[in-house]
Amino acid sequence: MKEMQKEILSYLEKIIEEEKRLARKGEIPDYIEEVDNNDHGAVTVSLTSIDGTTVRAGDYEGRFSLQSISKLFPLALALMDHGSEEVFKYTGKAPTGNVYHSLIQMEMQEREKPLNPMVNSGAIVMCGLMKGENADKKVDRILALARDLTGNQELTYNEKVYEAEDQDLNRSLFYYNRHNGYIKGEFEDVMPVYWKMTAIEVTIEELSNMAAVIANHGVCVHSGKQIITKDVVTTLKAFMITCGMYDESGSFALEVGIPAKSGVSGSIVAAIPGKLGIGVMGPDLNKYSNSIAGIRMLKKISDKWKLSIFSEDRSS
Amino acid sequence: MKEMQKEILSYLEKIIEEEKRLARKGEIPDYIEEVDNNDHGAVTVSLTSIDGTTVRAGDYEGRFSLQSISKLFPLALALMDHGSEEVFKYTGKAPTGNVYHSLIQMEMQEREKPLNPMVNSGAIVMCGLMKGENADKKVDRILALARDLTGNQELTYNEKVYEAEDQDLNRSLFYYNRHNGYIKGEFEDVMPVYWKMTAIEVTIEELSNMAAVIANHGVCVHSGKQIITKDVVTTLKAFMITCGMYDESGSFALEVGIPAKSGVSGSIVAAIPGKLGIGVMGPDLNKYSNSIAGIRMLKKISDKWKLSIFSEDRSS
Amino acid sequence: MKEMQKEILSYLEKIIEEEKRLARKGEIPDYIEEVDNNDHGAVTVSLTSIDGTTVRAGDYEGRFSLQSISKLFPLALALMDHGSEEVFKYTGKAPTGNVYHSLIQMEMQEREKPLNPMVNSGAIVMCGLMKGENADKKVDRILALARDLTGNQELTYNEKVYEAEDQDLNRSLFYYNRHNGYIKGEFEDVMPVYWKMTAIEVTIEELSNMAAVIANHGVCVHSGKQIITKDVVTTLKAFMITCGMYDESGSFALEVGIPAKSGVSGSIVAAIPGKLGIGVMGPDLNKYSNSIAGIRMLKKISDKWKLSIFSEDRSS
Amino acid sequence: MKEMQKEILSYLEKIIEEEKRLARKGEIPDYIEEVDNNDHGAVTVSLTSIDGTTVRAGDYEGRFSLQSISKLFPLALALMDHGSEEVFKYTGKAPTGNVYHSLIQMEMQEREKPLNPMVNSGAIVMCGLMKGENADKKVDRILALARDLTGNQELTYNEKVYEAEDQDLNRSLFYYNRHNGYIKGEFEDVMPVYWKMTAIEVTIEELSNMAAVIANHGVCVHSGKQIITKDVVTTLKAFMITCGMYDESGSFALEVGIPAKSGVSGSIVAAIPGKLGIGVMGPDLNKYSNSIAGIRMLKKISDKWKLSIFSEDRSS
Repeated sequence: MKEMQKEILSYLEKIIEEEKRLARKGEIPDYIEEVDNNDHGAVTVSLTSIDGTTVRAGDYEGRFSLQSISKLFPLALALMDHGSEEVFKYTGKAPTGNVYHSLIQMEMQEREKPLNPMVNSGAIVMCGLMKGENADKKVDRILALARDLTGNQELTYNEKVYEAEDQDLNRSLFYYNRHNGYIKGEFEDVMPVYWKMTAIEVTIEELSNMAAVIANHGVCVHSGKQIITKDVVTTLKAFMITCGMYDESGSFALEVGIPAKSGVSGSIVAAIPGKLGIGVMGPDLNKYSNSIAGIRMLKKISDKWKLSIFSEDRSS
Repeated sequence: MKEMQKEILSYLEKIIEEEKRLARKGEIPDYIEEVDNNDHGAVTVSLTSIDGTTVRAGDYEGRFSLQSISKLFPLALALMDHGSEEVFKYTGKAPTGNVYHSLIQMEMQEREKPLNPMVNSGAIVMCGLMKGENADKKVDRILALARDLTGNQELTYNEKVYEAEDQDLNRSLFYYNRHNGYIKGEFEDVMPVYWKMTAIEVTIEELSNMAAVIANHGVCVHSGKQIITKDVVTTLKAFMITCGMYDESGSFALEVGIPAKSGVSGSIVAAIPGKLGIGVMGPDLNKYSNSIAGIRMLKKISDKWKLSIFSEDRSS
Repeated sequence: MKEMQKEILSYLEKIIEEEKRLARKGEIPDYIEEVDNNDHGAVTVSLTSIDGTTVRAGDYEGRFSLQSISKLFPLALALMDHGSEEVFKYTGKAPTGNVYHSLIQMEMQEREKPLNPMVNSGAIVMCGLMKGENADKKVDRILALARDLTGNQELTYNEKVYEAEDQDLNRSLFYYNRHNGYIKGEFEDVMPVYWKMTAIEVTIEELSNMAAVIANHGVCVHSGKQIITKDVVTTLKAFMITCGMYDESGSFALEVGIPAKSGVSGSIVAAIPGKLGIGVMGPDLNKYSNSIAGIRMLKKISDKWKLSIFSEDRSS
Repeated sequence: MKEMQKEILSYLEKIIEEEKRLARKGEIPDYIEEVDNNDHGAVTVSLTSIDGTTVRAGDYEGRFSLQSISKLFPLALALMDHGSEEVFKYTGKAPTGNVYHSLIQMEMQEREKPLNPMVNSGAIVMCGLMKGENADKKVDRILALARDLTGNQELTYNEKVYEAEDQDLNRSLFYYNRHNGYIKGEFEDVMPVYWKMTAIEVTIEELSNMAAVIANHGVCVHSGKQIITKDVVTTLKAFMITCGMYDESGSFALEVGIPAKSGVSGSIVAAIPGKLGIGVMGPDLNKYSNSIAGIRMLKKISDKWKLSIFSEDRSS
């Protein structure tokens, strides 16, 4: 076991080295660069097996915001609150990836229903739908869930990042979805939830802990506690494979084959069912807003240990 | 073993009974009803495990055309002929499911590249790209592959179905894609390939044999022969999960969680990696052009034995 | 002259009679029905020649809100404030009528620029662009313009209608356009302008007075004062013909051939260059949100006196 | 009169000089450059008044193909054959100009009906709809109409241009529209009509003769013969203003204000109702596929003599 961990660590350190040598090629969104702590070189990776062991490499001490990864939280809570039949009256189940020129078009289905809960529209709608009397109560529930998933009971959001999140496009989406009947509540009861959850900060190890719970069908790999119900976790993983990587989801399913969700902070959470949780982080983004280093590292790890859910040897 | 087979058979017979009792609710496309042999009641299912055992129930003696299931053939051949880097210059990797009002829009990406190899445009482009001097040679290669996959060396296409396939929409797509540079050849060298492969006829057992090869990473479960390379099979399964069920792909991934490809004859091929191949057939289609009985039976089978690639117990 | 007026009046009374007899077939938007004074039967028409004579028929004493007709005001003011080169950095010049399923898509061009100043997005952008320190100052300028055009110096907006206008779709469009850089100001400085101008109330005679100024190249037919510059009036008429009637603009140009702008209160302002201003009003709307009675009366008037700008005898 | 003609000629020669001095900035489509006779410098203009007088300047001796200008012919014939109610079951009346990324999308309405008779789809559908037993008979009818309109009874199409027109995009549109039910006939009975009419060659004077008939409400300015019925001419002019200049139609209506139709040969036919027909030609095209010199000359002519149908003094 120790032997295997060493071997894993040595491989992770190797791929981190490769990333550090590779020229930076991507972009960091301005507002992220301003408010977040990470710099271009802050590449890191962490693996947490469902037996609870974690191996990590790179700059693993930094904290970064979850950004779109947090979209998993209100979806999980809304599903546990209302059941899937009710939830999918409010968002579609369609994959992401049919590239259209307009951000808004891209997120809408025929009757203007959000495409799925992983696009901005869908996540805003989920923040409206999940139970909670007001924004503060909803944020408390999301923080409680995020703390259980990461194992860090001090976890919170970064105030500066939260403020930077308050942007016109999401305001527009809120009113558009309320106009279409998919949101019932007030602006003040919904949008702060969306922006605060986006600003929740984690370490790479906390991210791989969270991934491991998803890989472990909702059960914490440390405490053994059922944090999210099995059915809901199955739904999360299905959405992660069909729409977790923005418009690159189809391509990522083909080439990496691991249910994953990325955020514009450059972080990605990835869960191999019944095996392993992975967190990767590298701030430079490609044109799909996914971490360049993150995708490259996940591809190497998937190839190295045959982790694609579509490939041959993963059950061995 | 025998005991388990009996149990499986008894479950399959039960769900076939249920389907027969359920009122017919869907539509059979006119041209399919005219030329195909199947009738509304012809519901059947077959399971082929990767150890080679087959269990089947329902009207398993009928033959039906593969329709869109055959799109897997030119994709597999083009990938083995040219490698994935070359192939994906000609089609995208985007999931299907972003419902738009126009059939043509639905199939096109920003630069008019076919969305993926599972939509009509993409499959026509693959029929152009795969090697073969002319249509006859290409059809021979596809039939050879289909015969190896199904285990029936007499397999061929139904002449009447082939003639009924010759339709204006696909002609339009041929010229549109050639206009955009994604097809090089002549009409006579490409379109008969597309229409003939669509008309290939199989039994439900032949379909589950084919599914089992995909589940078994390209190796025939009877002969042990590698029919499709492992990498290509991985790609097929990834496309099956993200775009195998037309616009219902996202929803099917969520609710059934098995890589699958359907055709308008009412047949579906489904492969659980490392485990099992499934063929289902029921002619009535829902609004997404998928078999109503087929999807319902796959859902029951997936739930019964926890076969979703995203669910808990599938590795056990 | 008197003879001709009588003849006109008699024809107008005839078509009003016909409208009253026709079964009501359209819809009145809920919020309009609630707050506006008009009822289904309130059909009326007024013609003001460029020599200043007015002939009117039907229920001409009622007041109704201008709704989208008011979009002409901030466009005229922005053009006089900044010139057309500057203004058309903020909106396109494309016709309306390419029917798409999404309200938002329908209003957007490739780079998300509003299609033209007659769609909601474009008019909101114009309310932002026109000069004025704050919303009150801008509203004052618009009211001053509307008073000069209608000849009623007491003209103002209906407070109840104004309140009902405050709706999520327009909020969404404000933030979407600000996100895209087409609006610089604050919500409070722009949206009350848009909503208040929409609620300005006129009589049918005031509407035909306004139409006559447009027909008379910007010069008031009573006072002889140049209210809008000639170039700007030419631009207004061009927009009226290509996008004044929502998605029915192309069809209206063909069948009626008069530059016109309609509003969901059921009113339409129409200007025959060098000849005549027309106001029509009939609350029931067709599926394009245009007044059913209004379009029918304009068609009859256009046919009767050959007023189409594309037809033979109009210069005689 | 002679004096005025001299003044007009002198102005036309001045603007031709200006065009010759302006650097060439546009593109000539490859296939046009190959088969057509015109070169970059071949700029010319001709005015034919409804009294029959013609004034022309520039390289007026060259012949060039009509290209999309010929779309007016099958529309006129179909309207005279079947009446407008029947014709508009087959195409929409929507303006062109809502810029979308896909050529096909751009041409389609919600139910896939061609947007209007001036886009390729619509014109192909009109070639199918107009009466005529086969392609030859239809071409004869179109040539007869074109000869009457231009006054040249020897007019015919250029064989080399005709052959170059046979392209995949239009084949695709034929099959797509037949799939959707808007074309009934065979490929051989429709597409040669479309391609041959496109290749009809005229001189600039013949083009302004044709324009003058349209300006003169369908009556030949030389023979006094009614060539196209009044109602149909009114319809043609309405379509020319809303969709005669491809995606630049809205902008052209605003800035020039003359009903016009352009072709990729660089020619434009323009008709000021009750006044004047204009032909302009300059092979370099802007990004909308309209003649750069042609639009600039029309703008100058419109401004010089106040010819915009929306401007003040045109009736004087």
